Amino acid sequence: MKHFTKVSDISDIDALVKRARTFKGNPTAAEHMGQHKTLILVFFNPSLRTRLSTETAGTRLGMSVITMNANQGWKLEFEDQVIMNSDRAEHIREAAAVISQYGDVIGIRTFPTLTDRDKDYQDHILNSFIRYAQVPVISLESAIRHPLQSLTDVLTIEEFKKTKRPKVVLSWAPHPKALPQAVANSFVEWMRATDADLTVTHPEGYELAPEFIGDVPVEHDQQKALADADFVYVKNWSSYRDYGKVHTQDNSWMITPGKMDLTNQAFFMHCLPVRRNVVVADKVIDSPQSLVIHQANNRQWAAQAILEHLLNQ
Amino acid sequence: MKHFTKVSDISDIDALVKRARTFKGNPTAAEHMGQHKTLILVFFNPSLRTRLSTETAGTRLGMSVITMNANQGWKLEFEDQVIMNSDRAEHIREAAAVISQYGDVIGIRTFPTLTDRDKDYQDHILNSFIRYAQVPVISLESAIRHPLQSLTDVLTIEEFKKTKRPKVVLSWAPHPKALPQAVANSFVEWMRATDADLTVTHPEGYELAPEFIGDVPVEHDQQKALADADFVYVKNWSSYRDYGKVHTQDNSWMITPGKMDLTNQAFFMHCLPVRRNVVVADKVIDSPQSLVIHQANNRQWAAQAILEHLLNQ
Amino acid sequence: MKHFTKVSDISDIDALVKRARTFKGNPTAAEHMGQHKTLILVFFNPSLRTRLSTETAGTRLGMSVITMNANQGWKLEFEDQVIMNSDRAEHIREAAAVISQYGDVIGIRTFPTLTDRDKDYQDHILNSFIRYAQVPVISLESAIRHPLQSLTDVLTIEEFKKTKRPKVVLSWAPHPKALPQAVANSFVEWMRATDADLTVTHPEGYELAPEFIGDVPVEHDQQKALADADFVYVKNWSSYRDYGKVHTQDNSWMITPGKMDLTNQAFFMHCLPVRRNVVVADKVIDSPQSLVIHQANNRQWAAQAILEHLLNQ
Repeated sequence: MKHFTKVSDISDIDALVKRARTFKGNPTAAEHMGQHKTLILVFFNPSLRTRLSTETAGTRLGMSVITMNANQGWKLEFEDQVIMNSDRAEHIREAAAVISQYGDVIGIRTFPTLTDRDKDYQDHILNSFIRYAQVPVISLESAIRHPLQSLTDVLTIEEFKKTKRPKVVLSWAPHPKALPQAVANSFVEWMRATDADLTVTHPEGYELAPEFIGDVPVEHDQQKALADADFVYVKNWSSYRDYGKVHTQDNSWMITPGKMDLTNQAFFMHCLPVRRNVVVADKVIDSPQSLVIHQANNRQWAAQAILEHLLNQ
Repeated sequence: MKHFTKVSDISDIDALVKRARTFKGNPTAAEHMGQHKTLILVFFNPSLRTRLSTETAGTRLGMSVITMNANQGWKLEFEDQVIMNSDRAEHIREAAAVISQYGDVIGIRTFPTLTDRDKDYQDHILNSFIRYAQVPVISLESAIRHPLQSLTDVLTIEEFKKTKRPKVVLSWAPHPKALPQAVANSFVEWMRATDADLTVTHPEGYELAPEFIGDVPVEHDQQKALADADFVYVKNWSSYRDYGKVHTQDNSWMITPGKMDLTNQAFFMHCLPVRRNVVVADKVIDSPQSLVIHQANNRQWAAQAILEHLLNQ
Repeated sequence: MKHFTKVSDISDIDALVKRARTFKGNPTAAEHMGQHKTLILVFFNPSLRTRLSTETAGTRLGMSVITMNANQGWKLEFEDQVIMNSDRAEHIREAAAVISQYGDVIGIRTFPTLTDRDKDYQDHILNSFIRYAQVPVISLESAIRHPLQSLTDVLTIEEFKKTKRPKVVLSWAPHPKALPQAVANSFVEWMRATDADLTVTHPEGYELAPEFIGDVPVEHDQQKALADADFVYVKNWSSYRDYGKVHTQDNSWMITPGKMDLTNQAFFMHCLPVRRNVVVADKVIDSPQSLVIHQANNRQWAAQAILEHLLNQ
């Protein structure tokens, strides 16, 4: 069964991006293909963009959409052979199988613990759902990946690029809270799969997991990295090595107009929500080069293409 | 762009009320006009009637409706040029623009602080959404107005009035909690715009804001005010002058059968929810003269007329 | 007006079960019969299966479905003639009448107090809604009954039974928390109404209310009860006599493979969620004889048949 949780789930990224662009031009291009089908979105962590864009995408395919906020009170047991006398009232085996009775596609949003690296990097919760679900599962952001965001980002770069193989820089930025590595991991994964000219820049200690960064060049001098960039993708993440820790909030890593001047009139990208004047200066995000609202818009077409892809099996 | 937040947003109230009555008689009169459009309702404060009636109204126009309870965990920054390192993770600039990507009409429910009068009376949150939204915004009750309720009340009076220009009395009533002035402000605003014969009665210290009360006669003797009334609209509000304070819970202001005897067999109105035997005696609200359930019913037709009005632009 | 809260609301159970089976084979068999109608589901207590299955059922009949989580902040007053100056902001009289303005069918989920037996067994909240609602009410589990579950169970037994009148055993099982008697009460009620060959087994002190158990044989020796069973329905409940108390968590009452060996190759049933290795051993619930996921699936067809039944009046 096809699921959608990572770039390797997709054999033809170009075709998928093309299909998303078709939906952007013609939202009702497949308005009956999901008729009589139900999309169930389960949020173990809160969501704005993902919920709205995925609901809209499902509806435009003619699906019924049910959204469950599972972050309050629905405690699941994921371990096998356990005596369930704790506060976890339902086992993932039943939970996933039961939701599969009512939905034709299941979306799952879950966050990492940021304390147990092994469990997080096994993508424990998402993979348990996949194991016991009887229908396709779509990741609405997992402990370590955010594939709907990354597909959106590929689509947005495709729309705005001026050269065949633009230079893309992923830059770490400071943030007051410890955030997941999911967006960064996933962005790198998709850039590698699409053979982009990617450079990553971050302070020492913020190295991404080896399986994600691969052989992508890492430049610790942010200014050097930004030189001649066509796209600057900015995101905070907490440490992978010293797992889940915030080593620095060094605001010299904030993206400013001066830094954008180093680039090839680059576009600014961020997945949102963003902390203004912490991650990025007002003048950059409010400039015509900022693509953040375009990215938000593109979330719905990416989701629509993926849902169609999963229904086509 | 047309929005709906106050009476002055409407150029022809009579036509709007007439259209609402059309929908009441024929709920499916425009069942395809909102097809392929999405209505997103954002509740920063909880709601029963407004949510159900507005969802129903949108659905009857063929819209998809998504309701977000934003009162938990979605903390927005409304100030400009601030360094966002507090607990407010998203700026209204992005939030409003992003929701605009997914919705064709956005509804916003928000309450006043009841502590910061200036900010409340600037209708800070609602107006920030309007400023940064890219689609029409509908107020689902703001810090200082509740226009969908007021349009409903105009519609209800129109249905039940026995004379061309009935006497309408808005009476303050006691309540154990500090409540907004929104319903009272808005009711007065709409009564003035429709040239109703309005009298307001309340204890000293509960004067409404000058911009709302205007030259409407205020009578501090409730019994005198009620004489010959055709409609008695009852509502508690906290003090505007001594902002957000509860000066009195004087139960002699409760609406009783004896007080209704002073009227011209008046109809009793309240927007609900209502505290029985605090705001109004059981015998009044349970009498045939009580219109409270009719008002609740009319909420949906008012909302449907307004949504159609906003879609028609 | 027809409601659905207990078995005696149904005059022809066989026809209803047959209709549910029709929907299972042909989910769109009546896809327009609920067109332009709204189903409003009010959850005073959380729900997974009931929400998803009832929403799906309503949608398949063409209804619009609105789900309200009323467990946070919507405190209703149920007593008459009270001075409402507590934290209960709305009276059931208004609440039920208002929801009736927007919905064509209202579903209510509520749980018992497990402290006030008299009030619970009057099914106070559900019956108050019925009294003041102006449209059909469907119980989504009340203080003392869970009729959608029971109809599902009748349907499931009908599908899997190998003899005309199979032996059905309802067995109490241990649980760390005090649970309602609703599922057990309701199951017994429906088994009696369908003239099943039912035996109930539980430890002393867990006797069900006399009006529910009636003349059904009770066997305190679980192993004796299980002999030759065709269906083993397992469920924990707290004490009715010593109301709401947990007398024992005696794990010798757990359903194990050894106990299933005493039966006539019985099917295992449970309404879910279930505590593995507390209520039932992994090997039983994971065996081919386990019907728990079939039961979950059947919830939607039972709900669809009931909704159609209520719309047909």
